[in-house]
Amino acid sequence: MRFHWLFAALAIPGLSMAAEGMWTLDNPPTARMQAEYGFTPDSGWIKRAMLGSVRIAGGCSASFVSKDGLVMTNHHCASQCLDQMSTAKKNLVADGFIAKRREEELSCPEIELNRLEQITDVTEQVKSATAGLDGAAFKSAQTAIKAKLTAACVGTEKDIVRCDVVDLYHGGRYQLYKYHRFQDTRLVWAPEKAIAFFGGDPDNFNFPRYDLDITLLRAYENGQPAKIENYFPFSKNGAAEGEMVFVTGQPGSTQRQLTVAQLTTLRDVSLLNNVLRLAELRGVLEQYSKTSPEAERTAEHALFGVENGYKALRGRLDTLLDPALLQQKQAEETALREFVAKKPELQAKIGGAWDAIAAAEQVYRQIEPQFGMIEAERGFSSKYFSYARDLVRAAEERAKPNGERLPEFAESKLPELEQQLFSTAPVYPAFEKVTLALSLTKMREILGADDAFVKQVLGKQSPDQLSAALIDGTKLGDPAVRKALWQGGKEAIAKSSDPFIKLALAVDPAARAIRQRYEKDVESVLQKNTELIAQARFIQQGTNAYPDATFTLRLSYGEVKGYQQGGRKVAPFTTIGGAFERDTGAEPFALPASWHAAKDKLNLSQPYNLVTTNDIIGGNSGSPMINRKGEIVGLVFDGNIQSLGGAFWFDQRYNRTVAVHSGAILETLGKVYGATDLTQEILAH
Amino acid sequence: MRFHWLFAALAIPGLSMAAEGMWTLDNPPTARMQAEYGFTPDSGWIKRAMLGSVRIAGGCSASFVSKDGLVMTNHHCASQCLDQMSTAKKNLVADGFIAKRREEELSCPEIELNRLEQITDVTEQVKSATAGLDGAAFKSAQTAIKAKLTAACVGTEKDIVRCDVVDLYHGGRYQLYKYHRFQDTRLVWAPEKAIAFFGGDPDNFNFPRYDLDITLLRAYENGQPAKIENYFPFSKNGAAEGEMVFVTGQPGSTQRQLTVAQLTTLRDVSLLNNVLRLAELRGVLEQYSKTSPEAERTAEHALFGVENGYKALRGRLDTLLDPALLQQKQAEETALREFVAKKPELQAKIGGAWDAIAAAEQVYRQIEPQFGMIEAERGFSSKYFSYARDLVRAAEERAKPNGERLPEFAESKLPELEQQLFSTAPVYPAFEKVTLALSLTKMREILGADDAFVKQVLGKQSPDQLSAALIDGTKLGDPAVRKALWQGGKEAIAKSSDPFIKLALAVDPAARAIRQRYEKDVESVLQKNTELIAQARFIQQGTNAYPDATFTLRLSYGEVKGYQQGGRKVAPFTTIGGAFERDTGAEPFALPASWHAAKDKLNLSQPYNLVTTNDIIGGNSGSPMINRKGEIVGLVFDGNIQSLGGAFWFDQRYNRTVAVHSGAILETLGKVYGATDLTQEILAH
Repeated sequence: MRFHWLFAALAIPGLSMAAEGMWTLDNPPTARMQAEYGFTPDSGWIKRAMLGSVRIAGGCSASFVSKDGLVMTNHHCASQCLDQMSTAKKNLVADGFIAKRREEELSCPEIELNRLEQITDVTEQVKSATAGLDGAAFKSAQTAIKAKLTAACVGTEKDIVRCDVVDLYHGGRYQLYKYHRFQDTRLVWAPEKAIAFFGGDPDNFNFPRYDLDITLLRAYENGQPAKIENYFPFSKNGAAEGEMVFVTGQPGSTQRQLTVAQLTTLRDVSLLNNVLRLAELRGVLEQYSKTSPEAERTAEHALFGVENGYKALRGRLDTLLDPALLQQKQAEETALREFVAKKPELQAKIGGAWDAIAAAEQVYRQIEPQFGMIEAERGFSSKYFSYARDLVRAAEERAKPNGERLPEFAESKLPELEQQLFSTAPVYPAFEKVTLALSLTKMREILGADDAFVKQVLGKQSPDQLSAALIDGTKLGDPAVRKALWQGGKEAIAKSSDPFIKLALAVDPAARAIRQRYEKDVESVLQKNTELIAQARFIQQGTNAYPDATFTLRLSYGEVKGYQQGGRKVAPFTTIGGAFERDTGAEPFALPASWHAAKDKLNLSQPYNLVTTNDIIGGNSGSPMINRKGEIVGLVFDGNIQSLGGAFWFDQRYNRTVAVHSGAILETLGKVYGATDLTQEILAH
Repeated sequence: MRFHWLFAALAIPGLSMAAEGMWTLDNPPTARMQAEYGFTPDSGWIKRAMLGSVRIAGGCSASFVSKDGLVMTNHHCASQCLDQMSTAKKNLVADGFIAKRREEELSCPEIELNRLEQITDVTEQVKSATAGLDGAAFKSAQTAIKAKLTAACVGTEKDIVRCDVVDLYHGGRYQLYKYHRFQDTRLVWAPEKAIAFFGGDPDNFNFPRYDLDITLLRAYENGQPAKIENYFPFSKNGAAEGEMVFVTGQPGSTQRQLTVAQLTTLRDVSLLNNVLRLAELRGVLEQYSKTSPEAERTAEHALFGVENGYKALRGRLDTLLDPALLQQKQAEETALREFVAKKPELQAKIGGAWDAIAAAEQVYRQIEPQFGMIEAERGFSSKYFSYARDLVRAAEERAKPNGERLPEFAESKLPELEQQLFSTAPVYPAFEKVTLALSLTKMREILGADDAFVKQVLGKQSPDQLSAALIDGTKLGDPAVRKALWQGGKEAIAKSSDPFIKLALAVDPAARAIRQRYEKDVESVLQKNTELIAQARFIQQGTNAYPDATFTLRLSYGEVKGYQQGGRKVAPFTTIGGAFERDTGAEPFALPASWHAAKDKLNLSQPYNLVTTNDIIGGNSGSPMINRKGEIVGLVFDGNIQSLGGAFWFDQRYNRTVAVHSGAILETLGKVYGATDLTQEILAH
């Protein structure tokens, strides 16, 4: 689960209303905010919100909360680091962690932080590079111009500058996002998972809620805590019911502007296949976790990701099975098509876009099994294989000019890739055998036992036999081995006898072939034609609309507000005392010992978790929730169950953002965890 | 998996054409058979087909193949017996079984055979009993008349007579099916699972195929082999390509006559929930099976059922996601509604039926989570709980007059229930803990951790804790304990301290309440209104149509025929030599040692498996395939992958029945298994 942006969806049907929208920071909905709440953020406010916000490159949001580089995010956003720094004898996930002094702060091997610093429109450059092109030529031209623009933006500072060309409004706009890159990130404080994820999967995506889903990290530069000018001060009192609040964060992906053909393909193919895959994987991991404490520990992070993803995707699937959703989407599509059809010039240029997309979706339905299993690695689910694939392809791609590489090997992407490849995080062979064997079994099931590719991979072996043989024979668990192969390039790869390198080499022709088919007949058709539809939408609506989420920084506004569920009222706040009432002593409803020990000291009526009407989606996990003064009033960690359809539409009647109250963070940080230095650091302003 | 009728679906879109139809034996499509194949079976042919056919009460089909009660069915239909008669030291599933003498034939503790002997129409009695009634009153009246009719039919011979009131054409016809009941069934011969299910899950529902999916049982009466007058002789040569063939068997359930509202509910609720449940359970069982050989052995039967069900339901789900299917169903429904609307008298009586059904489906969508988890036992997945539920309810129900009981406790149903309850088959506590804990977890997930029923069941325990406590404390694994509770009735149940009895008692009020809600607001509305629609269909079409499958004896005709798949031709036959070519030595493609040892003796060009155009569905597993002379030419064991939509429509272009060739059975029975006595018994005629 590299992308935590499955987290925390928020949305509902209908009109573009009130809190709806994930707005880019160069186009905030100031008129709406003024009309609805009598508040207009000025450009300084927006700038501070942008610079205080942080993206975790793996798929979460965060914020700076002190001048010394302290970063606040969710426990579940940093749990991979907690997991990687744990051993059989020292379990940071279960026990939590606190660095008493800065020297005790632990390096996280795979966390990269990005702070957005500049947005530049490059729509004309990108569009003119692809003008008149189709299929593979369109794709190559787009890859080349993006590589050129990002390389120029990064210049010689690739260690501290990251640039991405961002596709907004499905090709309606292209922008260059320039980030400050922090790769030295250290763990400062994390509570026990028992309280960070109190209620576990049963309470996930639900409210009322009682989670202290927080971890504090620290950004370092040149071996010292990073000096941060713009950070968010903390509000101890938080926000009152009805108060206007803002979320700045990185929503991963929404599909609110897809065509009906895209939505039904998403439903029948991508969502259904994925939710079924996750259901079976969940069963496998649940049962594997019961075989030993070490199995439980090493599978925990993966199991959490699977359960979370399962629930999120199931919610999306149910939304797409709701006839009201497709009726509304169909009506919107028909209206836009009629708008286009009335203008002969538009019709000639854009009128065919919907049918072209529908045809590409039919191609996708045909090739999805091959594409998913072979190119998207769903048939080879193992960290070893991912390393091998990256090493094999990097050797091939890095030998090419920057503009001709597969986009994920462009110069601007290499620092993040190197961080992943050279990570010192442990790889657990016993666990990898389980996931790899299952994925090989699914590949045989879905492509068929008689498929030529399946026969090439399995030969006369069963999935279990092959998985064990590959993993028993590989050395790729050692970062030094991976570094040597990276540095040795094509020659080292060709000479390697590592079974995963040999496997990745052997399957690469088939993987590249299906990818090319996908890029030529699906992706480029979708890009070209969604660009056309985006143009039609701009002509009809202007930029009064917000673009679908793309894991770029967005601003959402809303207010603290409860909702109705099953005929009863859900209040907007829970309290710390409520957590003690919900405690059963049995997982996942067992409060940690530290909380029981501190109970007498705690203010049990302190608001703990809250819900707001902000429009967010997975990827917003870890986002700061701020008030008009730009102070932290909460830490976003989830959406309620009604929010899961937010990928497709927004209904502010029911959908809610779920956050930890700022006062509860301060209350427990001191009284439960004795972290007085951190409390002081946060409150110093 | 009590119902094997998930097996072997067969069907496709469209016109009522050629081989389409699962016809009752009192209404064979003689005119069509004559027109298409120039053959009309006379009444003697039909009678012999009926008496030679056998139903396995748990959910399969079979046939008599000797005068001494020899019964042929599929290995997968008898594998529960093989499993139950196995121990940690003697694995009949893996090793196969052969009784060298009749005294060595092993009693199967839970197999009941039914031979249909008489069909009587009781439509008028049933309809007049429910005339003018609605809701609960409708349901009670129908239960009472069915109990009365079956009791009168059985008379005093309940040990050897079984009667069921059968609902055909969704209430268009009610008929009384009178069966001869055989409860003493013994195991005679079974090959190794490695050849019975060669290719395993990857090849399941596929063709070409190489399975010897057969087991021979023997029916006993009064301790002696049953004397059988009507049985099917064997054809050694089998059927040629293009030859007309017949299948007589018990297709379990089709949904070809449902309304669109019923089909979409089936898709969005029942199928989706079930396929997801099976996917996770599959993962759990796969991983559990890897923990030890004994775990593998004790989970094998369940895992097979889960994998088979998963594939079958996934196929149905995909069919219902195909827009062509729903368009066709909508068109048929619209045509019938227009036909009704044109006749004022019909419109007044029937016109509202579709909307009434749609409204009932909405109620079902609301109550399905409770109904499924609490009443349908999906939250309590354990053999112990099923025993406890049956014992608790039987004590309550048997104290009532026959006509007022829950239908499953009517006098006519008790012999089968007693056979199940007093079965000496082992129950494996370690395995039960796994399935029970998972189902309790799913109950908490789906009903919610704050649901009052969930809190009542779990209290402060986790699903794992509760599952272990219940199973460690129960004595219900002992058939003597169950018999004592059965005989002790309400008093014994009330006094029992068994934790499962106490649990079943505690949850029964909630279970009965949701069942009553279901019966009143869903089931009775559906029954009443589908009866009305069936009347409209009769007026429009007469009995030129066949009723949806209902696990009653049906006749299907068709021919031996290959098909096109992905642009290539699939031949109708495989050969024994092909199995050797497909052998990899690794499960599930490893031929057993007995086959390798006999290879030199075998005729490698002997046809092995074949496909035909017969219209069948799950429940037909084990059906005899016969030729015009009434000789066995094959043993049905599956449908191809294209057949999985057969629940909803029939397309003879692609959908095929898959069978073992009669010649391959004779060839291997002698040369591989040395069962010359059995060969002689089968061939004596």
